[in-house]
Amino acid sequence: MVKRGDGLRGKLIALEGTDGCGKTTHAKLLVEWLRSKGLKTVITDEPTDGRIGEILKRAAKGEFKLLPEVEALLFAADRVQHVAEIILPALESGNIVVTERYIHSSMAYQSARGLPLKWIKTINSRVPRPDLAILIDVPVADALKRIKPLRELDTFEQDQEFQKRVREKYREIADEESLIVVNGVAKIEEVQADIRKHVSALLGI
Amino acid sequence: MVKRGDGLRGKLIALEGTDGCGKTTHAKLLVEWLRSKGLKTVITDEPTDGRIGEILKRAAKGEFKLLPEVEALLFAADRVQHVAEIILPALESGNIVVTERYIHSSMAYQSARGLPLKWIKTINSRVPRPDLAILIDVPVADALKRIKPLRELDTFEQDQEFQKRVREKYREIADEESLIVVNGVAKIEEVQADIRKHVSALLGI
Repeated sequence: MVKRGDGLRGKLIALEGTDGCGKTTHAKLLVEWLRSKGLKTVITDEPTDGRIGEILKRAAKGEFKLLPEVEALLFAADRVQHVAEIILPALESGNIVVTERYIHSSMAYQSARGLPLKWIKTINSRVPRPDLAILIDVPVADALKRIKPLRELDTFEQDQEFQKRVREKYREIADEESLIVVNGVAKIEEVQADIRKHVSALLGI
Repeated sequence: MVKRGDGLRGKLIALEGTDGCGKTTHAKLLVEWLRSKGLKTVITDEPTDGRIGEILKRAAKGEFKLLPEVEALLFAADRVQHVAEIILPALESGNIVVTERYIHSSMAYQSARGLPLKWIKTINSRVPRPDLAILIDVPVADALKRIKPLRELDTFEQDQEFQKRVREKYREIADEESLIVVNGVAKIEEVQADIRKHVSALLGI
């Protein structure tokens, strides 16, 4: 198992949500704040820039299609690599690691593609759970409105019905998976304050 | 699930065993024989020549190392693709499909790399089981002696201790997984006759 060693001193925080919910913005603001508190912090995201992440990114751009099972297994493989190469070393040297997307992205997106949640959880069971996972919940129409002025929608984002299923899956798993849900429709500073409140509680700062 | 449709008329036969046990030779002889009987037959192998299989082949050549979990997930993903693109369509049009390596290769090799068998089985649970899986059992020293005059050993093959663990894992799972074990040390024609006997029983020919 790719697991946390005894010397692990950091904490792993995952920001989750549908495309356009504000993960990137809030990850950056969160990290700025943590650093202003003098805390060593690493910011990272999934899929990675590695050779498996690259396949996933090309598929998202519509270059080719992946079967749901293949996509789920590749996300899990990319995550193992992410944990081994970036997340665990950072945690071991005492960093707070903030990742955009982690295990719960697979649970929401791949179950929205019709795969059983239990199977998705099992294929992702060889990496550590996050210490805190925050779902930034935003209605799909609002989220896509935010992306459109910035860039073209990728193939996942273009499919609004799919995005709606993903949001529903996120909300369904929130309870049993102890996801913290924040209302992502509020003003940026309010959403960020909400996120910081939960991170404060985790870190005791 | 990537599953067998109602119209499925073919049979899936997997040849298994450590590197150099004779899978390629026996797959070819078996297919020649099946075709001589007038049976439509497809011969295939894993890892595939697709983009995931290519990563696995490059890793086997020693270009880079894959973590055991990553390797296991990639083999499972490559297999889903293999089933969807080659195996299922062939079975649906009534072919006998003979594959060199299938699910039991993952069970043997990845558990020899230290992963729990149960997890390996679960990540491979979205593809159909073979109708018949035959383990060609050969002591590792004999198997490697067969490869050496033909080509250079890849990184897996070079590690004799690993090959020995793989052989042990194959033998361990043979019982509970209903693998047919044939003695691969005998003369080629004897081994092939043994294989054909089991295939005859499966196909009623």
